[in-house]
Order: sequence, then C-alpha cells, then structure tokens
Amino acid sequence: MIVSMKRYATKAEIQSVCDRILDFGYKIHAIEGEERVVIGAVGVGDVTACLESLEALPCVEKAVRISAPYKFVSKEFRTSKTVIRINGGGIEIGGDDFIVMAGPCSVESEKQIMESAHAVVKAGAKVLRGGAFKPRTSPYDFQGLEEEGLKLLRKAKQATGLAIITEIMSDRDVDLVAEYADIMQVGARNMQNFALLKTLGRCQRPVMLKRGMSSTIRELLMSAEYVVAHGNSQVILCERGIRTFETATRNTCDIVAVPVLQEMTHLPVVLDPSHATGKRSLVPALSRAAVAIGADGLILEVHPCPEKAVSDGAQSLHIDEFERMMASLKGYVKLWKESRPAPATV
Amino acid sequence: MIVSMKRYATKAEIQSVCDRILDFGYKIHAIEGEERVVIGAVGVGDVTACLESLEALPCVEKAVRISAPYKFVSKEFRTSKTVIRINGGGIEIGGDDFIVMAGPCSVESEKQIMESAHAVVKAGAKVLRGGAFKPRTSPYDFQGLEEEGLKLLRKAKQATGLAIITEIMSDRDVDLVAEYADIMQVGARNMQNFALLKTLGRCQRPVMLKRGMSSTIRELLMSAEYVVAHGNSQVILCERGIRTFETATRNTCDIVAVPVLQEMTHLPVVLDPSHATGKRSLVPALSRAAVAIGADGLILEVHPCPEKAVSDGAQSLHIDEFERMMASLKGYVKLWKESRPAPATV
Amino acid sequence: MIVSMKRYATKAEIQSVCDRILDFGYKIHAIEGEERVVIGAVGVGDVTACLESLEALPCVEKAVRISAPYKFVSKEFRTSKTVIRINGGGIEIGGDDFIVMAGPCSVESEKQIMESAHAVVKAGAKVLRGGAFKPRTSPYDFQGLEEEGLKLLRKAKQATGLAIITEIMSDRDVDLVAEYADIMQVGARNMQNFALLKTLGRCQRPVMLKRGMSSTIRELLMSAEYVVAHGNSQVILCERGIRTFETATRNTCDIVAVPVLQEMTHLPVVLDPSHATGKRSLVPALSRAAVAIGADGLILEVHPCPEKAVSDGAQSLHIDEFERMMASLKGYVKLWKESRPAPATV
Amino acid sequence: MIVSMKRYATKAEIQSVCDRILDFGYKIHAIEGEERVVIGAVGVGDVTACLESLEALPCVEKAVRISAPYKFVSKEFRTSKTVIRINGGGIEIGGDDFIVMAGPCSVESEKQIMESAHAVVKAGAKVLRGGAFKPRTSPYDFQGLEEEGLKLLRKAKQATGLAIITEIMSDRDVDLVAEYADIMQVGARNMQNFALLKTLGRCQRPVMLKRGMSSTIRELLMSAEYVVAHGNSQVILCERGIRTFETATRNTCDIVAVPVLQEMTHLPVVLDPSHATGKRSLVPALSRAAVAIGADGLILEVHPCPEKAVSDGAQSLHIDEFERMMASLKGYVKLWKESRPAPATV
Repeated sequence: MIVSMKRYATKAEIQSVCDRILDFGYKIHAIEGEERVVIGAVGVGDVTACLESLEALPCVEKAVRISAPYKFVSKEFRTSKTVIRINGGGIEIGGDDFIVMAGPCSVESEKQIMESAHAVVKAGAKVLRGGAFKPRTSPYDFQGLEEEGLKLLRKAKQATGLAIITEIMSDRDVDLVAEYADIMQVGARNMQNFALLKTLGRCQRPVMLKRGMSSTIRELLMSAEYVVAHGNSQVILCERGIRTFETATRNTCDIVAVPVLQEMTHLPVVLDPSHATGKRSLVPALSRAAVAIGADGLILEVHPCPEKAVSDGAQSLHIDEFERMMASLKGYVKLWKESRPAPATV
Repeated sequence: MIVSMKRYATKAEIQSVCDRILDFGYKIHAIEGEERVVIGAVGVGDVTACLESLEALPCVEKAVRISAPYKFVSKEFRTSKTVIRINGGGIEIGGDDFIVMAGPCSVESEKQIMESAHAVVKAGAKVLRGGAFKPRTSPYDFQGLEEEGLKLLRKAKQATGLAIITEIMSDRDVDLVAEYADIMQVGARNMQNFALLKTLGRCQRPVMLKRGMSSTIRELLMSAEYVVAHGNSQVILCERGIRTFETATRNTCDIVAVPVLQEMTHLPVVLDPSHATGKRSLVPALSRAAVAIGADGLILEVHPCPEKAVSDGAQSLHIDEFERMMASLKGYVKLWKESRPAPATV
Repeated sequence: MIVSMKRYATKAEIQSVCDRILDFGYKIHAIEGEERVVIGAVGVGDVTACLESLEALPCVEKAVRISAPYKFVSKEFRTSKTVIRINGGGIEIGGDDFIVMAGPCSVESEKQIMESAHAVVKAGAKVLRGGAFKPRTSPYDFQGLEEEGLKLLRKAKQATGLAIITEIMSDRDVDLVAEYADIMQVGARNMQNFALLKTLGRCQRPVMLKRGMSSTIRELLMSAEYVVAHGNSQVILCERGIRTFETATRNTCDIVAVPVLQEMTHLPVVLDPSHATGKRSLVPALSRAAVAIGADGLILEVHPCPEKAVSDGAQSLHIDEFERMMASLKGYVKLWKESRPAPATV
Repeated sequence: MIVSMKRYATKAEIQSVCDRILDFGYKIHAIEGEERVVIGAVGVGDVTACLESLEALPCVEKAVRISAPYKFVSKEFRTSKTVIRINGGGIEIGGDDFIVMAGPCSVESEKQIMESAHAVVKAGAKVLRGGAFKPRTSPYDFQGLEEEGLKLLRKAKQATGLAIITEIMSDRDVDLVAEYADIMQVGARNMQNFALLKTLGRCQRPVMLKRGMSSTIRELLMSAEYVVAHGNSQVILCERGIRTFETATRNTCDIVAVPVLQEMTHLPVVLDPSHATGKRSLVPALSRAAVAIGADGLILEVHPCPEKAVSDGAQSLHIDEFERMMASLKGYVKLWKESRPAPATV
C-alpha cells in the first residue's frame, strides 16, 4: 500500500497516518519526497477498509493498493491451470480440448430442446445450454419453464450424452438446480449477487461466472474469489461483452479480457459470442477470434427456429449455420492445440 | 412497433413479416416507401419477443418499439405523483417536504449507530440509513452485523423517532428485514436481481430501488415495474451515479436522470451524493444541486468518525460537516418548496 | 513517482530500474516490502516517458505518477481565482457575477441572429453565442456561414452591446475569428486538436475550452495547460456532458466535474445544459442545478424558432422559455452570490 | 423517416408535422395506430435538420431515421471491396494479402528508424510506421521531430523499399506530409477534425482514419464519408480500441467492429493491437484474433529498445518479439487467405 500525503503535510499529520496504518496491522516503510511525503506499508489486513480510512483523512492525497486483493484465484496461488472435469471426467474445460457449449437461450418445449440437443452434439458441442430460469428486463416477458425446463434438459442429456449448463438466479434454488445441472451458470446481472455466490461456494457443482455488464476484470476475479473462498474451486469465467456507448452491437466484446485473465488467474476462460454481439451474422467471425486469442471454449446460442424463439432470436444461430461454423473452426482449433502449453491437472 | 424492411424486399418477404406480427397478436398498418418498405403495427402482445423474432428475419433491417414497455410506473398510468408515507404517516416522500435520509454506511456498534442517529435527527434528517447486510466486492471485507445490526437500528429508531432504511440482499431475508425496516433498500448491484424484486413485490414495505451502475433509466423503470406488477406500489427511485470512463469521482452522477424520470414516472426520485461522488468534499455541492434540480430527497452517509469507518469512510461526512450542509441547504429547500407543484395523494 | 516491482525481483533488476529513473533526471528513495519491492522517486523530468519506459521493463509491476502533470492551471500555481475580463472589462467571468451566454447554435441569417441577440440581452444574458463554423458529423449537413456569419455576429454586438463567443475549428482560422470574437470557443471534438491549442496559446483572445465527449477531467486540464503554456492564460473550462451508455439524454452531464475542477484549478468553469441534455425541457432544471453547484456561468442555446433551426433545434429554448428560465434562476443566483468567496483579481 | 406522435395528438398537430416534412422535401405515407399516430416519410433531404426540427415540436414523441446517412462509403454504393494500392501498386490493402504496418511510435533518430525499418521488413512487414508530428496529452511531452522526422522516414524507405505511413495533425501540414507519406494517418483525437478531413479529401494520398476514442462505428463511417465526398476515395479504417470503464488495458478493443464495418462498407479495415491494449504482452494474442476475425491488416508498434522509447514504450514490441509473432501468425494468415472472397478491383 502506498499513501501519498498532501503537499506541506505536517509531521503530526504524517504520524497520524502511520498510526492508522499500524492499527490496521500493517508495517511502515516511509520515504520523503522533495515536495510531498509518500508512505509505503506492507503486511496483511483489511486493505479496503484501511485504504478508505486513509483517504478519509484530509491530509492524504491518494492511497493505492499494490498487491492484488484476491488470493485463491491468482496465478501466484496456483501456477498450473485449473481443469474442470464434468460428465464423469469425460469432458475437461481448461484442458487439451476447445470446448463448445451450445443450445437455445430458453428451454421452450420438449421438441425444441431435443431437436437442439441432437443438432449440437452432432456438430461437435460437448455441453448443452438452455435456460429454465430466465432473467428478463421486463416482468411481462417469458420468465422460463423453471423445474419443468430442468426436467427437459435432463431428458436431452440422457438422449445425447451432452453435459448440461443452466442458469441459477437465486440462492434459494441452488439445491434444485444442482440436481440437474453439470455446470451452474451465474448470469451477468448476478455477478455481484453475493448471497448467491456464497451459496454456490458451498455447493459441489462447477460454476460458470459471467462477467457483469459493467464489471471490471478485477471485479470478476473478486466474485470468483467469493465462490472459491467459500469452498468451491471449480469456477469457469466467461467474457460476454460489456456495456459501452457503442450501439451497433448489443454489447462490446472485450476480447482482450481473455489473455488479460490468463495472465492473472489459473481458472479457465470461455467467451459468449452470442451475447457479446447480439447479432447472428457476427457470431462465426467472433468465434474464430476467440479460438485464435486462446479462450478455453465458447458458449453460444443455437435454435432450431430462431425466428420463433421466445428470447434472443436475433442472436441465435440456425442449426445449419452452427454446423458450418463448427466446420470452419476446425483449422483454428488445430492451431490452438499446437500452441497450447501442456495443461497441468488439478 | 415499426418494422423497416431491407431494400428490395420481395412481396413474399413482406407478407411473411406481416404474418409473424399477426401471430404475436398485433394489427398491421403498412406504408410503402420509395426505397424500402416500412410496416407499422399496433396492439398488445409480448413486444420484446416479437421484435426479436422480426429482427431474426434476414429481410428485416430494423424493428423498433414505440410505446414504453412499462405500464404501472408510467405517468400515463397515473398522472398524480405517488407519495410514500412512513412512520405512521408522519413522513412523506414525494410530498411537500424535501426528505433527508442519513447515517453510516454500515451499522458497526451500538455506540456508533446511536451517536449517528442522535446527530442526524438533530440536524434535520427524517430517516436513518445503516447497512446490516453489506454487499462487498471482496469476500475478505466486512460483511455486516446482519440481524444484530437490524436490532441496533430498531434501538436507534426507538430513541430518536427516525424511520429506518436498510439494505436487503437476498429474497431469503425479505421477511426478516421487513420486521425492522421502514424502507427496504435494493442496492445498485441487485437492481436486476429479479428473484428479489418479485419477493419485494409481495411484501408490504416501501422499497427504495437504486439504479444499477450500468443500468439505463428505462431499465430502472422496468425493475420498478417488477415490484409494482407483483403487488407493491410503494417504490422510491434513487440515482447514485453510473459507471463511466471518468475516474476522478467514484461514479459519475447522472443528475439529469432526476428530471428525466420525473417526465416518465409518478414515483418519487431521490439522489445519493455520497456514492455518486465517493468523496466527502463534493457531497455538499452536489446536495445543493439535487435540491435545485427538483429531487424529492437525499440519502447520504454520515459517520461520527469516518476515518475509522469499516466501509465508505472517504465519502462519509463528519457530523459537523453534515450540520453545516443541512444549514446551507435551507435557502435552496425554500426555493424548492415555492416551485413545487401541489402533490396529489395516493 | 512510485514503482512497484514484480514479486521476487532480483537485486540486479531493482538496480536497473533505479538506473533508469536516474537517467530520466529523478532521485531515488527506495523502500523494501516483505513481498515485493517498491521504489519511490522524486524530481523533475519527462514523467510520461519515464513511466512508460519503466512499465516496459518485465520486472516492473506498476509505475504511478503522484504529482499532477499540469502546472500553470493548477491551484498550487495560483491560489486566487482567474477572472476573465471582456468587453473592455465590463463583463467578468469567474468574478462576482453569474454569467449567461446564450444564442442560437448556428448563425443562419441577419434576421435570426438580430432577433436572438435582442431577446437574450433583454432577458439578462451578457454574451451572445452563435456558430459561423460548424462541426457536423455528416458532410451533407449545414457547415456554417463562415466569415459572413462572423460579420452578422459583429452587427449583433454593435446593436446590443453583447460580447461574442463563437467556435474556431482550425488553426488556419485563428486570426480571422479573433477579429470578431471576444471569446474563442473550442468544441468538444477539438479539445485535443493540439495544433489548434498551440495557436490559440499565441493569440490574445480568451478561450473557452469544451470538454471532449470522452475526455477525463485531467485531460481537460492538460488541454488548458497547452493554451496557457503557449502564452495565453485566459481560459474558461466548460462541462458539456460526456458520452456514456445512457441514451435517454444526448450526453450525460457530469455536473460534479464543476466542483472537482474548482478543487484542482483556478480557471473559471461554466456548464452547457443544452448539449449536456439534448432536450429543451430539461435545460431549466439543469441550469438551476449548475447555479447551485457553483458554476461560474452557463452557455446555452436559444432560438427565435427552434422548429426551423438548421441545427440543434431539439435542445434550443424558445425565447419565452429562456425568459421564464432566467426569471426562475434569480433566487438561485442570489444564494450563489451569498456563498461566493470574494474573488481575487488577476 | 418515422415520426411517432405523442398520445392524443390533435389532427391539427398531425397536419403541422406533415407540413414540416413536406417543407424539407420529403413525401408522406401516414398510418394511424390505436393509441398514437405514426407518420412515415420518404425521399431525399437534409435528414438531420428535418429530424431535429420535428423533435423540437411538442406533439412529437420520437423521430427516427431509417436510411443510412452515408452514401459513398456504403456497400449499397459499391458492392466490390475497395483495394488501396501503394508503392507503385506493389502493395495492396484490402486485397489478397494480409498487410502488416509496423515501426516505432515516434521517429527519434536516424539510427532508431533505420534499425526499426530493417527489422520490420525482414520480419515481413510491408509498411513502416513512425510519427513525426505527435499528439501528446501534455504540452511538456516530446512533440515529434516534424519535417526532420519525415526526412528520416524517406531515408528508411529508400533503404528498405517499405511504404511509409505517418500521422498528420493539422490541415496546414497536408502538403508537407503528402510529399513524404504513402499513407496519411489521422489519429483518434482528430477523427472529427472536419477541417483536416476536408483538406485530405482534396489530396491524392490514401488516408488511414483511426476511430476516435469514443466514436461510434457510424461516426467513423461519417468521417470517412467526409474524405470521400471531398474527392479522395482511398480511405482505410482502423479500429484501435475505445474508451470504457475498464482500466486493465489502455483501451477496450472493439474487435467486432471489424466484421460490423465489413457488413456496412467496402473500405478496408485494419486493427491496431498496440493502442488497443497498451501492453506489449497482449499484442501477439490480439493480432492472431485480428487475422481470424478477418481484418485486412495490422498496424503496430515495434521499437529496437522499447525501454528507451520517448513514447508508448510499454506497448511496443521488441524486435525479436515481433519476429516471433510474425512467424506465429503464418498459420492464421493461411486460413485467412483460404476463406478470403476473391476481392474485386477498384
């Protein structure tokens, strides 16, 4: 922690800052500048409270943290990459394969989800996505089939062998969803629903955490830290676009978040080209870029009839588009594998 | 709803668009442009699904909604302003008085909350704020005293007559918090926690809904619509700053959201200058501006010793600063009252 | 400057960082943390190049600047407020009066500008605004009357005694515009047109610098520093809204930039409620807030017939709206004067 | 154009809107909704002024444009892709080859630029970048060698056969820079410097237009339209990252802008991974993604000794890093060529 005093701070003020730092359990190493005093501190403590407490002093110009505020998710804690195994170990996320998760935005009917499941498994997807609990901006929009939807997902799994990823919206539903899902998806709007994150930390299912619409990369890691610190180390991160001034796309895909995260954490990182763009025609190009930049996988929307989808129709691929895209990704996935460092196992 | 076809759309394509619109329960009024056909539709239906379905068609250029997607919270639904009455009707938000809610970010101890309560009531505040459940970015930061904190708030209420506003973070805790709170605060990170909003809709306590960090004004109204549509019409909206590229302040206060909301909704609107700025020295100036622009009240952070606060110390006013600020607001509140249209009652 | 080394940096690496710092003309004050070394440096040099050079070293985690990068515009350079005198000293910006600058977006015709000028002077404005060179997003939109427009502005000045503010878009036009204008306006899109800023630094006219759509407060001050460092100390800053994700208003007014700037600089700060909102009905409320927050003045758009304006019609006030607004500001301006610290003179 | 009237607009109001539309040279096609009237209009006119004029009417809810406001740069104007030929036709941008432009941020000395040029040509770059006029946030930072720098670039060109791209900051310098440069670069801060764009439209050199930090994709196209409409059809567009709330990278790369632009325009699109990330270690991954998403080329920073660079050291690649990156791009460029539609010629 570095504390920069205001110009012409008195000795008494400097002393009061040092005292406060010591109160919070840190040690002092001070330096004196020509124009203003800067104080360095090291150690372990509640760094947020300490920084805020210091900035509240009128004699302090600025107080900045040097160490990262997360521990378990950092590369310093674990240097080898985390590999998430699902389906009895048959599928590895963060490992040697580029994993594609695909399916409709919402589970709408048995026919729709079975058709989707058969189509995506045939094209090479390993995980079926489909929402049973839907976060919708309007209370008047379709809210999901709830447990009925979960049962249909299980049926699709039994028929195809696909693993299941589905969204969880409330800490109340964790036990219910965990019965059906192989991966519990936390949506962008719930990335900082801390009650939910804590409950997921006590659950044994892998969690996929989507980045909030206006969350920084550091906040995404802090939310992952919540899950891990409460006991569940199986977390997948997902870049799905952030909110900016640009309106040509539904969100702005911060694709560079993928290598940035890989420099900071050992957790796998996937990309969602459907929400990142909001437009079907842009999904294949962004999917290729996601492979090239080194993501661990994709999660995207495919629907047997996007024109009739109850949600996200404009960004869902038709089944034949998905097949063509999967075929066109092959060359890129081959290069991806060649450049892949041999992953270490958990 | 207005649907603009791509240039040179065929008659068959135009027909298919009209069919789909009819399927969703709307009626058609078509016009033909020189270069491209534009179709108008009116009626009642699931407009989001319909628009998405239309945009998913390759022959459609753009589909836009004309009517607002919210109903109960709109001025078209109720022209007179909603007045929220608490404390047995002794306090009105949205009525003839400019209401100040003040207190510490977190309830930390009996001494701290009692001292705060006595100070803010003396300076003219009507409602005491204080968090018992705290949403913190880091799992290692102070998470709140929980029910113990709620009990301390009740004690402060009994001693001072102040009403209580406190944050609710999970639908699981609604009954518990409703026992103690006069106003249930939904924080920015939970503005789109739809499970929580629905549960609050079934509760009888007034709700204060803070705008999400990257939520549009329209989304804020949609979230309020969730609460009202589920049965609770007592909602207060709160502008607390949005996230932008500017880092000189903690957030960027979108103060114009206040009159924009007042043009769109009958619900009261308050402003939170503490979170909007993140810096104590800026709070008085922004508070004056909030009165001048016509907000219905303020919610802000005051602490007997901000330097020792466990959270938000840098943006909390000292008690004497709060007193001076309240004194300096008087002239502005007088002008506020003079320009106030006589409010209608619920 | 504070340089934080990567964990486990070697002694040789630390030495190489110190050497580089010395090369750039700074002095070292080093501290050693338990986990990582942090180096402090003080002195005078090309701090941007030095920081970038240090961050380019693989052993460096982070390098941060502590002192502000601007000098002449800072409060540390001049503690008393700068007062800009125009019209032979008859009008002071930054002084004892709240100054309103008003007029149409573009100068369109003699009739239009004369009518506007007579109306705004009658309602209490001191400066007439009107664009002769117009920055338009589309090459097909009206680009301004150019010198013809400047001549019409002079005519309006002669008839009313109003001072003139008008926009300058190219360093080529500085001499021409300076012949006619009392204040040279730099638009948001040119805030970092450094060729223009340097030329304005060599000119003797006051300059009003509008904040760029996505410029930080610090960058605004750096652009002002360009003008002052090149010889012209008469700079007025203008907050006119920034670009964010919100689309309910044309821009998002960062009103808190006003007190933030007043903490950082001695230059006067005005607010432009027309561009900040883009909507006429919101202008009076935001103008009141600008007075209450302590701005030194307003610049806004008024047009005899906004429905026929060639640009910015939606945000221009009708003349009678402007008159009513000016009347309603009076109470606020009275409070503004009471709280005004006695300004020092240049 | 679509104009939606306020609820309960009177017949007279509707008529007045129609009259105004006709005044602007458009024709009317009206439809009547159940709740509110919507008016459609078609034809050719000053659409911006017309829309603003209509929105200025109190009886109008919303007025939206349907057709794109740009013409010459749109795919509707020219369906075949524009190919820019430089170096006597030896280099084509937008054609069959993926073009890499590389070199230092600033020209600093003969030794530095010659060393850079020899290195980048050897690794496969076709164009040398290097700034002689530098836009710097601070007036105290290095401002470039100006004409001296241009002469050094010419020397490097003569020695290596590389074409030259360099930045132009003022319309005053267009003739001078055009003598030396094969491509005139307009920086992000000048994307809406309309005086400069118009002058470049009258010049015969190809122009590379960088997207402004907070400019929309549509505004980028409008700025390109300025150059083309004034006579110069040789424009290359460049995505270089936009400004968002995220601070982990210098800017946020809106990589999806590449395929979005390719759907809208026939102009070539390149990507600048150096400015988009601000961090050397992220440049190779983003460069791979740029190839995979289908950009026409890259422009990036390479320096013989980034640690001593006077600007942008942290984001410049070392020469050996650049060589390794160019080698690793080969597989991706091969896939790029295979999927490339045969380009049409100008």
